[in-house]
This record gives sequence, structure tokens and C-alpha cells, in this order.
Amino acid sequence: MSPEEFRAFGKQVVDWVADYLSGVESHPVRSQVRPGEVRAQLPAHPPEQGESFDAVLRDLDDLLMPGVTHWQHPNFFAYFPANASGPSILGDLLSSGLGVQGMVWATSPACTELETVVVDWMAELLGLPEHFRTDAAGGGVIQDSASSAVLVACLAALQRAGGEVAKRGIARRHTLYVSEHTHSSLERAARMTGIGADNVRVVAVDPETLGMDPAHLDALIAEDLAAGAVPTMVCATIGTTSTTAIDPVRAIGEVCRARGIWLHVDAAYAGVAAVCPELRWINDGVAEFADSYCTNAHKWLLTNFDCSLLWLADRGPMIDALSILPEYLRNPATASGEVIDYRDWQVPLGRRFRALKLWSVLRWYGAAGLREHIRAGVGLAQEFAGWVREDPRFELLEPHPLGLVCFWPRFPELSTEEAGERTYRIMESLNESGELYLTHTKVDGRTVLRFAVGSPQTERRHVLAAWKRIQEAVG
Amino acid sequence: MSPEEFRAFGKQVVDWVADYLSGVESHPVRSQVRPGEVRAQLPAHPPEQGESFDAVLRDLDDLLMPGVTHWQHPNFFAYFPANASGPSILGDLLSSGLGVQGMVWATSPACTELETVVVDWMAELLGLPEHFRTDAAGGGVIQDSASSAVLVACLAALQRAGGEVAKRGIARRHTLYVSEHTHSSLERAARMTGIGADNVRVVAVDPETLGMDPAHLDALIAEDLAAGAVPTMVCATIGTTSTTAIDPVRAIGEVCRARGIWLHVDAAYAGVAAVCPELRWINDGVAEFADSYCTNAHKWLLTNFDCSLLWLADRGPMIDALSILPEYLRNPATASGEVIDYRDWQVPLGRRFRALKLWSVLRWYGAAGLREHIRAGVGLAQEFAGWVREDPRFELLEPHPLGLVCFWPRFPELSTEEAGERTYRIMESLNESGELYLTHTKVDGRTVLRFAVGSPQTERRHVLAAWKRIQEAVG
Repeated sequence: MSPEEFRAFGKQVVDWVADYLSGVESHPVRSQVRPGEVRAQLPAHPPEQGESFDAVLRDLDDLLMPGVTHWQHPNFFAYFPANASGPSILGDLLSSGLGVQGMVWATSPACTELETVVVDWMAELLGLPEHFRTDAAGGGVIQDSASSAVLVACLAALQRAGGEVAKRGIARRHTLYVSEHTHSSLERAARMTGIGADNVRVVAVDPETLGMDPAHLDALIAEDLAAGAVPTMVCATIGTTSTTAIDPVRAIGEVCRARGIWLHVDAAYAGVAAVCPELRWINDGVAEFADSYCTNAHKWLLTNFDCSLLWLADRGPMIDALSILPEYLRNPATASGEVIDYRDWQVPLGRRFRALKLWSVLRWYGAAGLREHIRAGVGLAQEFAGWVREDPRFELLEPHPLGLVCFWPRFPELSTEEAGERTYRIMESLNESGELYLTHTKVDGRTVLRFAVGSPQTERRHVLAAWKRIQEAVG
Repeated sequence: MSPEEFRAFGKQVVDWVADYLSGVESHPVRSQVRPGEVRAQLPAHPPEQGESFDAVLRDLDDLLMPGVTHWQHPNFFAYFPANASGPSILGDLLSSGLGVQGMVWATSPACTELETVVVDWMAELLGLPEHFRTDAAGGGVIQDSASSAVLVACLAALQRAGGEVAKRGIARRHTLYVSEHTHSSLERAARMTGIGADNVRVVAVDPETLGMDPAHLDALIAEDLAAGAVPTMVCATIGTTSTTAIDPVRAIGEVCRARGIWLHVDAAYAGVAAVCPELRWINDGVAEFADSYCTNAHKWLLTNFDCSLLWLADRGPMIDALSILPEYLRNPATASGEVIDYRDWQVPLGRRFRALKLWSVLRWYGAAGLREHIRAGVGLAQEFAGWVREDPRFELLEPHPLGLVCFWPRFPELSTEEAGERTYRIMESLNESGELYLTHTKVDGRTVLRFAVGSPQTERRHVLAAWKRIQEAVG
């Protein structure tokens, strides 16, 4: 495709995306296709001769779009938001167009240096501590996801735990500590690092706050030490996936400090809320105790996937665990020690110029715009929670300080299990309607609906209409 | 940013990219900035108020572009090509615009089903075996990089090796087998999986072909078994990073089969060449013996990073190693077993709609266009090799069947080490000129220049001009 063909088709694609974004509300939120339906309409064999890009766009509309679930739809209240804002899409387009590889500084210096600038900017915007900045012992890096970030943190923790694991392999029993509400990526990390899922210890939670119990954590650690294990990492969560529960990071951190254990803080969804000073309390204890901290710009911060931010208090153990320098990557800049090679900070070797999209977002919205965006989501969620609280047919899970509201319909005549089944069926019927999309979780055996607000497309009228539909469905 | 603002700025960005692509030759290939130079020009603090996208584009031009190394430049002969073609950039733009999450089928069915279609198409285009297709026991998946692909393969191999590693952790000494030319991602995988770098065994290579010696492999395995280790995975490379050497996959596969060891084939760069029937010999033995196979569409196949293709002969061990289903991801489609959830095939949970860019490339170029592209690169490389061969000042490394040519200037009066230093300095002076960009490697202690052809922008005149500059520099 020549640059001139790219120019013409590119403008068609921009129009397609602009039309999509302005008309997204006309689609059912959740795709209504059945398994295999999209695939069955696509040719079994690749084309022998090239086709026009018009044919691609036509098939996108006719064959693929019915199979798309619309994460940018104003009535998407499922999972967590995955904002793809205009400046982010454009920053990503610039990254695709430049097509540079940022594996080491030398392969495209601006890719590395802009990343350093934007992660430092983000640390400042979120009020994260000075020692997370690149000019200190720590530093930030853009990962593809919070799962990869916790894997990197876990490898650094293993390295710091002694025994030269990266070199010699796992030779002792290492243990990780989570609660039942910690994200499944922690168990994934245990499976991937050779620690093993059986060595993930599940700490009890406070039944009111659903936060991890520091006393039980300490007791488990003592038990594991007595059994000869090496307690290696604790994961505290700020805003769990199920319910946005907040673990008591400070109290957990004191246990970790006393025991010499790595503290990873997973704030994948909630962390970006700290752009608002009035929400910065969620990070209490992070500055003093976190060895690593992760939050996803690609959830609630208007930056499209993938853009997960990982900071470390000390980058040394991570680099010891991950750095290898084959001959074909040797270069004067790396040898000088004056530059960062972010390939030593992540699982893959290659890396896109992902900083461009975050930079575009930060420039376009500014700190003030980001605060306004977060506050709008929190405000709508609080209003929704108020409506739930006032309706005697529903029970509301407290607290709900951010953009997620968890609640359930009361079925006093049914057992917990039957009520759960009925709730699940109600949710499925709402989701099948295409009018809105929610997901569920379980809390203490009970099936609970999750209503996550945070898309810039979502206005008060959408939240109100969704609430009315939920009320009708419960009857 | 409203859809209408996106429409207007989007067209500006498309113009920017089109102008960039048509004018890329006017830039120095390799950035000429010094460490810290880009960062020093960027503000230390994020903006408080939002700015126009014009300001972003202006700073991109003025502050960032001097720090960009131009991987799409026709005189980029370094590393391997990283093609970012027009249809790929547009497919990626559609993915950004849709902003869907493909972690499970249910979160956007088209994202999963198009991926299944394109990886099956690719298996057909490359002549890969039927059991790599999704409807068989195996299947393909798009990963971010060959490094992540080999990590996934290694986790599957550990699972198949017994001992329930994912559940119980590493409890025995597992060994991996590579040659000195295997990509560093294998040692990374050993470091990340708890196997440990010390348990990566380096098999000798044939001094002529630089391919792994199967007899030595078998001897090392026997030695490790006798010492009580669990030989777990062999990595054979088709097209090493240093020199595109090709390991004898068939003979290695026979050893693996007899010993019951997982064979991963890393064809990251070279594998896509098999779109051309006359180059399909590179994959000899893959159909019969490979448990997993990886090639990167994001290197030589006109698809921008990230788009690495991993196939498995049997997806079972991988899914056993990686699958976890938390409550908030439960859904009827997953429960039915009728769908693929690609999150169980990769390190992260989240995933972009990456199939769109590969689909756009396959549609636009067709099989015929892709063959033509690969043949053009091979043809130019062979012509370049011919010029080197004819010039008595240079030595050519044989064979060079693909798009990479390795060679070195003869300095008969110098020791190998001195000659290596002189060669490195010559390379650096060429790279500093901004006129072309090459990289180096070491073969048998000798510093060797790598000249990689494969960008669609590179024409015969560019290769000829580069050769003249190299000749001049050697004097």
C-alpha cells in the first residue's frame, strides 16, 4: 500500500471509527451471536489475490460487527471500563505508523525517553512516592497488563528472596500471600514462576470490608517459616476486581517490613482514581511500604489497551532477574550505563511505542480533565448506589467509594443458592436484551451484580435507564 | 474528544503518517541523539490544563522525531525488518477504535473467532501441519512476541513433563536445550519459569552450518537423565537471530521423540518465508516433530508489532498449566465448552483485537502479494551477497538463504580481536552517518556484520548505495 493509498483509506477508516463512536449506542451492547457464528461466515481459506480495503471494511460491517461486544457503549457496565479515548487512539495510530521497536534505548531513543517522562508524570499525578521516580532507585514502566506486571514483580521478589532463583532455579518452597478476592493473575504468576498454585496462601478477609486480615497474614507467614518455606511476596489489592474492596496496605506493609517480604500492590482498576486528591486515601501505606505498585491506564484512564503502569521502589532485583545481553543487542549506549533498556523490565523483548498514547491522553485532557473524568464516574456510581439503597427490593454492598456498585435483589423466600440462580438468570436476560451489560461475582457465597460506571460516553440518562431496566427485570 | 473532533484530528494524523511514510528517507536512519537529550526537552511535570492535539503533533515533530530510529526507512538493514504496512496500520487503528477486550470469547466473540480464522489461514499459507489447526488437537494463537510464545511453550512442556509443576511448583531439576545461537528468550524463559539459567544446556553446533548437533544433544540429555534431571524442552531454531542458521529440526525431533521431550521450534524471523513453496524446506521436520512452533508476522510479514504466531500440536498441556476461572469471568459460553478463551493461551489476561491487523494484511496482499514481498527481500539479499562474494576485501558467511547476509571485512594483518574492534568501529561510523543502519554479531569469536533486507520500502538502489558506502568505509 503506497503512502497515497494509505492516506485515502486511512481517512475512510478514521471516518469509520468516528461514525462508530458517534453511533455506538445503536448497537446491542453485548454481541448476540452464538458460538461459531462469526467464524462460519468467514472463508475457510485465505485469499490468493489481494483485495481492496473497501472489501475489508464491508466485511467488518457485515460479518464481524454482529460479533463485537461494545466496550465503548454508554450502557456497558460490565467488568471494568476499558476507555479508548480519541487522543489515545490517535497516539496509538502514531505508534503504528512509526513502527519502531523500543526494546533497548538505542533502537529508538525517543520511545524509551518519552516512556520515562510519562511514567514519572503519572507518578506525580497519582501522588506516588519520590522513590518510584526513574531518577531514584525505582522507576516506572509500561506493561501490557497487570498480569504481566505482577509476574515481573514476582520474579523480582524471588530474586530478592535469595538463592539466586533466576540462575539456579527454584530450589526451596516459596510462598505467596493473597486473599480470596485477589486477582487470579497472582495464581497465574505462581503457576508461571515455578512457585506453584499450592504455595499461594489465602489470607482471611475482614467480613465487613472484605480487606485482607493482617493478623492472619502474619500467622500464616509464621506457620510457613516454621515449615521451612520462604515467604516471598504478599499482594495487597486496592480495589479488588469483585467489589473494589481495599486491603489495609499500611498494616499489611508493616507485616511485610517486619518479615522482610516483598509487597506488591495491585491497584489495576482503582489506582488511577488517585489523580483526584480527595481519593488519594486509597493509596495509604503505598509510599512507605510498597515494593511494587501497578495501575492500568487502560481501564479507567482514557487510554486504550494495552497500557498498564508498574512502578518499583528498587529496580535492582528485577533487572538482576531479567537482564541478559546477547551480542546482537550490544551497543555503545547500553555499555555506557547512561540509558534505560526497558526490555529488562518486562517479559517480552520487543516493545511498541506505547508511551505515545498515554502522552497524547495526558496532553489532551491535562490533569484537570482527568480529574473531571474520574469524578464524573464516581458521581454517577454514587447516584446509582443511592437509588439502589432506596429500593427495598435490593440490597447494596457497602462501601462503594469508586465507580463500581455491587448489589443484589432480595429474594427472601429463596435459599442463597436459589436466589443466586435467579439473580444470574435476571442478569443474563438483561444482557441478552442488548440494552445494557452487567457482570456478576460471588461474595460470601452470594451472587452479586456488579455495575461499573466510568466510560466517558456514559451520561446520567444512561445510568437512570439502566436502573429502570434492572428494576423492571426484578419485578 | 468528541467523535467529530476525532474525525478532524484523525485525518490530520493520517496525513502525518502518510507524509512520514512517503518522506521517511529524508531522516537519518538511526537517531543521532545522545542519552537524555529527548527527555531534557520535555517538561518535567504533566500539564494541568488540556492542550490541542496540534500541540501534540508539533512536539512530536520538534522534540520526539530527532530521537526516533526509523525502522521503516529503506536503508534500515539492522536487526530484522519490522514491517508496518498500510493495511496493518489501518487494521490496528480499527482495533484501537473498537477498543474491545478479547480475554474470553464472551467479551467479544468476533475478536476470538477472527483470530481462529487468521491463525488457521496462516497455518495453511505456511504449509504447517493439519494438527496445528484449531479444529484438531492443536491450534494457533497471536502472542505479543516470540519471547512470550516460548514462555508459554515452556510452561506447557513443564506441565507435560509430569509432577504437576503449575500446581505444586518446580520440585525437580528441569533442563532445557539450546545452542549458542538460540535466542536469549530461551534463557529468559528458564529464568522466569523457575527452571533457572544454569539448567539451560548449550548443545554444540556444526561449525559449518552453525546448526545444533543432534548427537551432542542426545549425549547431554543422557548425561542429565543419569544425574536425575528431567529434560523438559529442546528449542530448535529455524533462522537464528545472529545468522539465520537453521537447526536440523528433523534429526533433533527424532531425539526428542525417542526421549519424550517437548520440541519447540523458534522460527521467529524465518518462518513466514514459508509462504513461498520454494522456501518451505526450512520447515523440514516441523510437521512430524514440533510440539510448538512460532513465527512473527511482525517481522517480515508486513504486520506491525505485536503479532507473533504460536501453534501447538496439542493445546492440552498449555491449558492445564494456565487456565484459572474466577467467578467474575464465568459465562454460559465458557461453561458450554463450545468456545475458545484465548486468555488460557497466553501470559496476560487482557488482549487486544490483534487479528484485525493480520486479517487486513492477508486481505490486502493476498497469498500472491505476500509471496512477492518475501521473494523481493530474498532476491535483494542474494544480489547483495553476490557483490560481497566478488569483493576480495570481504568474506561472506555461507549459507544465506533468506533476507539476511552476514559478512566481514578481511584485515589479514590484524588479530581476530583487533579485526573485530576495527569492524565494530566501521559499523558505528556508518550508523552514525545516518545513511544506513546495520548491526553485528559474533560467530566463532569473530565480529560479523549483519545486513538484513526485507522492508517493502527497500529497493535495489538502496541496497546498492548501502554496499557502496560499506565499501568506501572499509577503504
